[in-house]
Amino acid sequence: MSKVIIGVDLGGTFVKTAIVSTEKKIIAKASRPSDADGGPKAVMDAMEASVRDLLAENGLTMDNVLAAGFGAPGPMNWQTGIVYSPPNLPGWKDVPLAADMSKRLGVPCYVDNDANVACYGEFWMGAGHGAESVVVFTLGTGVGGGVVVFGQLLRGIDGTAAELGHIKVMRDGRMCGCGSKGCLEAYASVTGMVRTAEEKWAEAETALKAMTGGDTEMLDGKIIYEAAVAGDAYAQWVFDETATWIGLGAASMVNMLNPERIILCGGMIAAGDMLFDKVREVVKANAFEVPVKRCQILPAGLGGDSGVIGCAGCALARWQEDNR
Amino acid sequence: MSKVIIGVDLGGTFVKTAIVSTEKKIIAKASRPSDADGGPKAVMDAMEASVRDLLAENGLTMDNVLAAGFGAPGPMNWQTGIVYSPPNLPGWKDVPLAADMSKRLGVPCYVDNDANVACYGEFWMGAGHGAESVVVFTLGTGVGGGVVVFGQLLRGIDGTAAELGHIKVMRDGRMCGCGSKGCLEAYASVTGMVRTAEEKWAEAETALKAMTGGDTEMLDGKIIYEAAVAGDAYAQWVFDETATWIGLGAASMVNMLNPERIILCGGMIAAGDMLFDKVREVVKANAFEVPVKRCQILPAGLGGDSGVIGCAGCALARWQEDNR
Repeated sequence: MSKVIIGVDLGGTFVKTAIVSTEKKIIAKASRPSDADGGPKAVMDAMEASVRDLLAENGLTMDNVLAAGFGAPGPMNWQTGIVYSPPNLPGWKDVPLAADMSKRLGVPCYVDNDANVACYGEFWMGAGHGAESVVVFTLGTGVGGGVVVFGQLLRGIDGTAAELGHIKVMRDGRMCGCGSKGCLEAYASVTGMVRTAEEKWAEAETALKAMTGGDTEMLDGKIIYEAAVAGDAYAQWVFDETATWIGLGAASMVNMLNPERIILCGGMIAAGDMLFDKVREVVKANAFEVPVKRCQILPAGLGGDSGVIGCAGCALARWQEDNR
Repeated sequence: MSKVIIGVDLGGTFVKTAIVSTEKKIIAKASRPSDADGGPKAVMDAMEASVRDLLAENGLTMDNVLAAGFGAPGPMNWQTGIVYSPPNLPGWKDVPLAADMSKRLGVPCYVDNDANVACYGEFWMGAGHGAESVVVFTLGTGVGGGVVVFGQLLRGIDGTAAELGHIKVMRDGRMCGCGSKGCLEAYASVTGMVRTAEEKWAEAETALKAMTGGDTEMLDGKIIYEAAVAGDAYAQWVFDETATWIGLGAASMVNMLNPERIILCGGMIAAGDMLFDKVREVVKANAFEVPVKRCQILPAGLGGDSGVIGCAGCALARWQEDNR
């Protein structure tokens, strides 16, 4: 049997694990709590157990494993595999994740940031398959990004590249969590969508008020989406605004990278055409004709598994790079 | 003697020509009118004569030439070497520039767009030398751009990439020549600077009014710069605004590409510290700490010759690619 690669996507709540063959076949997937409250050791215990259990369940051992890739929240150093202090991993400080997991598992381990692995997953086996250049926006609490050009992840000289949520889309615009103003993330994330809903809340006539008991703290992407689908004009406006901002960010990427695909990931893409029609319309109105015609704007092909599959894909690519 | 490469940078007014050795030594440079009013044949005659004259003056013949690279205004197809219909080259329509010049000169000829060759020139022998990733903004009537990542020009799938003047920096902002709103070019170009000066012109107390006889048609970058240097507060504000927009565009590039260098080209860079101090300040305030620390923001190292030197550099790189 040919070798397999392990992907492990580490989030604040769950650890997702996948076994993928070098021929790009997904052999098995699993998910378990990440035990993040227990600190780095508990999380690494959970990851190791998840890998060993999933292998055993599929009649495999570590001898079958070529390499393992880990996706983690930044900031980090992807080359040394050291994870600094991600906000949603309490107790983590300069954890040598790649080295520690290599010691535990006995195979080469690689670490990449979570948006980059999601991008690589889509490029490798998802909606970006077959393309040489892919841009991924991960739309969630924040806006993450990944870029593949020349068939490889664009990581930048320090590994901090592709922060697509922090391109400036509005001079003197909304304050962003990063400390500057007018970032795409402040508008195009789910958090940004809620902020848009709050903006004209006082004078708005909207079913959202009944749905939330008038409490904007209760607003989230799902409620806004449901109200919009039910025909609420204010919720539709909020949703369209958000899609417009995503479209403006995507238009900049079209003009800047002339990519073959732009792929949207995250819960928001469940909105389907309501989101994608508007994004495509805004891109068409704001970018050059030739690259607009070329660029497909698509939902993630791997759904919520872009990250974990991408972990395996990145590990394979990096192992091949190390061993050529 | 080792072979030489010819660079020819074609503009609406002048043709610049350079001879560069494969060891990156600039052997000779020249400039002559491009005879653009005469249409494609007259321009190609001028380019051919310029190449042959410059070689002869330096004791060289076409036998010494490995390849020739041409920089031209877009739109174009860099792979086929066909130039479509650039606004400032009257009478040009789908001109097979690379094929025609190859026939005239008897050596492999390559065509690239003018902002890309400027970027490559800076990467190859200018302020970007030694870096693997370089972003160039060409600040003139418009804002052009070039990007080198992984040591090569980022052209995109159709060759339209790196249109840095057309990233969106302001939702519903100024109308741009490209037909959409809020592009960087509408603010950060010399034309954009003049528009900024016009914006509060009526109520402004400024020496610019005496300098222009009150006619905003007389405003240009040089007059605004001179008034600013002379201490005119309005002109200083206009200049700072322009530098702020450039800085916001550069900050987006820092967050997105984590490049080693950002290089500004064009007449505006003559303003020196007055421009660069503000641009660096805005980048620092608007981008992440690690990539900001890494990225040097520099004036073009080749001055006005980035393009013509880059033409030779691109030709060499493409010839090597074709012959490896």
